Amino acid sequence: MSAPPPTEGPTIRFATEEDVPTILSLIHELAAYEHASDSVLATPSSLLSTLSFPSNPAHGYAKTLLIYPPTSTSTTSPATTTPTCAGMALYFHNYSTWRAAPGIYLEDLFIRPEYRGRGYGTALLRRLARETVQVGGKRLEWSVLKWNEPSIKFYEGLGAQMMSEWVGMRVDGKGLERMARDGEGEEKRGTA
Amino acid sequence: MSAPPPTEGPTIRFATEEDVPTILSLIHELAAYEHASDSVLATPSSLLSTLSFPSNPAHGYAKTLLIYPPTSTSTTSPATTTPTCAGMALYFHNYSTWRAAPGIYLEDLFIRPEYRGRGYGTALLRRLARETVQVGGKRLEWSVLKWNEPSIKFYEGLGAQMMSEWVGMRVDGKGLERMARDGEGEEKRGTA
Repeated sequence: MSAPPPTEGPTIRFATEEDVPTILSLIHELAAYEHASDSVLATPSSLLSTLSFPSNPAHGYAKTLLIYPPTSTSTTSPATTTPTCAGMALYFHNYSTWRAAPGIYLEDLFIRPEYRGRGYGTALLRRLARETVQVGGKRLEWSVLKWNEPSIKFYEGLGAQMMSEWVGMRVDGKGLERMARDGEGEEKRGTA
Repeated sequence: MSAPPPTEGPTIRFATEEDVPTILSLIHELAAYEHASDSVLATPSSLLSTLSFPSNPAHGYAKTLLIYPPTSTSTTSPATTTPTCAGMALYFHNYSTWRAAPGIYLEDLFIRPEYRGRGYGTALLRRLARETVQVGGKRLEWSVLKWNEPSIKFYEGLGAQMMSEWVGMRVDGKGLERMARDGEGEEKRGTA
């Protein structure tokens, strides 16, 4: 008696330069879903110059994992058409000083609406947990809107804890320019 | 009538491999200050292998800026003793998907108690604002304990906004191991 063949799952792979149009589409769809399309300033060239790809891993600031549904197993010949991308996880490495160890910060997780309910979000989070362990990392982190109770419950079910005692601070736009300018000449510049 | 000589400010420079013992001392002092000395797992070798230094900027996950008080200007000969380090800022690059731009996340800011009240924390934050602008970055971010009202007021005075609508989620320890293990084999592994 042989074991049954394993159920075919989704395919997860790192995005390459050729996937930039797909990534940009996913970013626009995520923004539209959040009624914030005007906030997207990303372009194909800005993504190309700021993301990391397997061909040049030391370049760029963030990596992208893409998830694809399984190709149909009902035909005897392998599928020849490119499957549609179901979603992505875009992340960067963060750092814990006390542990002197890297971690992963998930900046954006998006599954296209028609592919939800298949466990793809969980599959991407578990893949990121593996990536974290593989770099000797100790933490997988992300942020969620406080009112998004269903997502928080879902994440807690996967083993995540809410960091309720902390709040993020941000300087951007004019405030960042002013802060950068105010520092000019106030210190003797050290050797870099 | 000539202008008065500029007031000498602190010196800020990037930490090198030789500064690792100083960084580790500062980490221990910060932890003791927060009554969390047991949480420090960092060692000289783990810091060496995970931090970035100017000699090898593509290596490691985080950079460290050190701040030194001005050397005395009351003597006519240049100071020959190494001044004591007054504090540090340890940071890494994060990423904004919608802007397709990097930013800076300040993981730890610490000024030794005897050097407080001199504006060194502000000087480090302004230096980080300049570093952010120099890499084409759009955001300087960090986290603060919610009950730490004096710090929040101080940061808001510098132009920072509280990201009150967001909460962080974290998976670590056994939860991270379990999550990494649960993903084994659930997906067909794609090419990396």
